[in-house]
Amino acid sequence: MATTIERTNFSDEALRAFVRRALAASGVLDDDAALVAEVLVTSDIRGIESHGVARLEGFYVDRIADGSIDPRGAATVLRETPTTLAIDCGNALGHPVSVRAMRSTIAKATEIGAAVTTVRHSNHFGIAGYYAMQALEADCIGIASTNAGRLAAPTGGRDVMLGTNPFAYALPGENGDAFVLDMATTTVALGKLEIAKRLGKPLRPGWAIDAAGHPTTDPDAGMTGALLPLGGHGTESGGHKGYGLGLLADILCGVLGGGVIVPDMPPSRNILKGAICSHFFTAIRIDTFRDVAAFKRDISAVIAQFRESAVAPGYDGVLVAGDPEAARTAVHLRDGIGLDPVVVASLDRVAKKVRVTPAERLAA
Amino acid sequence: MATTIERTNFSDEALRAFVRRALAASGVLDDDAALVAEVLVTSDIRGIESHGVARLEGFYVDRIADGSIDPRGAATVLRETPTTLAIDCGNALGHPVSVRAMRSTIAKATEIGAAVTTVRHSNHFGIAGYYAMQALEADCIGIASTNAGRLAAPTGGRDVMLGTNPFAYALPGENGDAFVLDMATTTVALGKLEIAKRLGKPLRPGWAIDAAGHPTTDPDAGMTGALLPLGGHGTESGGHKGYGLGLLADILCGVLGGGVIVPDMPPSRNILKGAICSHFFTAIRIDTFRDVAAFKRDISAVIAQFRESAVAPGYDGVLVAGDPEAARTAVHLRDGIGLDPVVVASLDRVAKKVRVTPAERLAA
Repeated sequence: MATTIERTNFSDEALRAFVRRALAASGVLDDDAALVAEVLVTSDIRGIESHGVARLEGFYVDRIADGSIDPRGAATVLRETPTTLAIDCGNALGHPVSVRAMRSTIAKATEIGAAVTTVRHSNHFGIAGYYAMQALEADCIGIASTNAGRLAAPTGGRDVMLGTNPFAYALPGENGDAFVLDMATTTVALGKLEIAKRLGKPLRPGWAIDAAGHPTTDPDAGMTGALLPLGGHGTESGGHKGYGLGLLADILCGVLGGGVIVPDMPPSRNILKGAICSHFFTAIRIDTFRDVAAFKRDISAVIAQFRESAVAPGYDGVLVAGDPEAARTAVHLRDGIGLDPVVVASLDRVAKKVRVTPAERLAA
Repeated sequence: MATTIERTNFSDEALRAFVRRALAASGVLDDDAALVAEVLVTSDIRGIESHGVARLEGFYVDRIADGSIDPRGAATVLRETPTTLAIDCGNALGHPVSVRAMRSTIAKATEIGAAVTTVRHSNHFGIAGYYAMQALEADCIGIASTNAGRLAAPTGGRDVMLGTNPFAYALPGENGDAFVLDMATTTVALGKLEIAKRLGKPLRPGWAIDAAGHPTTDPDAGMTGALLPLGGHGTESGGHKGYGLGLLADILCGVLGGGVIVPDMPPSRNILKGAICSHFFTAIRIDTFRDVAAFKRDISAVIAQFRESAVAPGYDGVLVAGDPEAARTAVHLRDGIGLDPVVVASLDRVAKKVRVTPAERLAA
């Protein structure tokens, strides 16, 4: 029994303009607001609805309003060398500082071959993949990571210790094709538990434990317990690997960046303060290793081999990281972005809260 | 019913000396043989028996003897900048070129902040963690990866397309403590299927598919089928993430390095030629971001928080990546390394094949 959701259609331009209006009215400088709009709407264009304008109200507008994020926080450079850059975000929104940090990382890599940047005292920066993908048009390899409020338990443990701590990697192929991996290091995001609860379905084994540390398939028990790392419960299916990657993100971002770390990193369901996130960015200039054209040709050749490989029973095809998002991008740029009623209602609330014109709907 | 294996005890020095003798007798230069010995025996010291001297016969000595690896292959520099280095290994053994490549990467990072190196036309290099760990004493962060013969299927597919393609990361804490993550991007290694077969036990779900692409718990079916990426079968438990990481290793190593890629990368069970592996190394100098002492203090503080966190039912404690290997290292350096009879027999065959003195047993 399929549930039909009445989605409302918006153009990407209309959503960008709305985010920009709403943040400007919240006290964010227009250049910064434009960058946040670009990152959030790119997430919706790529079909990652959970990280797009759906978060504008709760993650950004409300948190500026309650004082936990500083709309005019100023970034400062802590240390800089020709290959490295350490930035303090000053508790501003995470997106503008991250777009600019990745631009600097790419500029350094373009100059000298490879560069690494950290950002501390930042906030949620949306999809990690956006920043990794900034490298694509500069003929670089891009890497981005962040830590975040705690939601997941380590292997063998039951305390909530780790965020969903994603890693993103982008490598360019020919003719705009690309390998773009953007993955949380937990098995699933919290949203999957919320969806299971809404649909009255059990969780899959390996998604969550209850508060006592037992594996659970009950959505409520999972939500009051903890998510599990990629690989699931225990070590038998590699849960310690996902846990290792999650902790790696925490220390590459939080410790190398000199930002907030456990125990000061708060649980995600209970974040009352800002400046808790740290980020990590890397860019590698391809032509310091090989001619760019040969590299792109081989990337496209390799991913074509995977796409054309034999399909397993029950599947429609073999995809490469970034393929689903690229397919949705084509549709959304052509037909507009259909938003869930819950998200539309949230945007309408934002318009009232900060007293700006609502986002313009596309004609049906 | 526990099976008792009569292990034979060796000192690490005796094993190193034996590997060195055996490879020198195979035509490998002594400096190179010493580096191979160091990497292999470090693997045994760390308790990673599958990647230690157990591989000396089949992976190295026999393959030099049959001409698929060149014992005197010479490495050449393809491209070099202050931050990057691209090397062709010349089909020599993978360990010496990799130890030296990581030394160069660390030297560059120490000079300038961050550095990246690729190696192509190489062979199996043992544990990726060895090379990442080279960075620890230089107060750098170390990263190492490799591709390898194909064993695993992509998500939604049934062709054997990916090696176990590991990533390793090493970050130093205080007083010699460290975070050392060294993980294959498949759920398990092939050895786990072989052990299940030997014990007559079923595979765990998510480990393997059969040749038709159906999930299987039958060891034989799995071995004639394919391993699965970390996250298991399909996308519901994140199998596409493990697949993404495996393909990432393939392209960071094989495409950026300009080495062998699919379809020329052979299936692992059927490797008849050398020079198929490519590697990827990164070093980041910590004090370009923060004072080293503060960094190490925070690494130790974070990993202590995890080790001291609440334990889930059925577990003995919460470990951090590298903890099991560090514990085994202490025991093996004190008591010697107990090798499985299968491995001892293999070393004895090597001694006969290349006509050198067998490895000296420790007195019981």
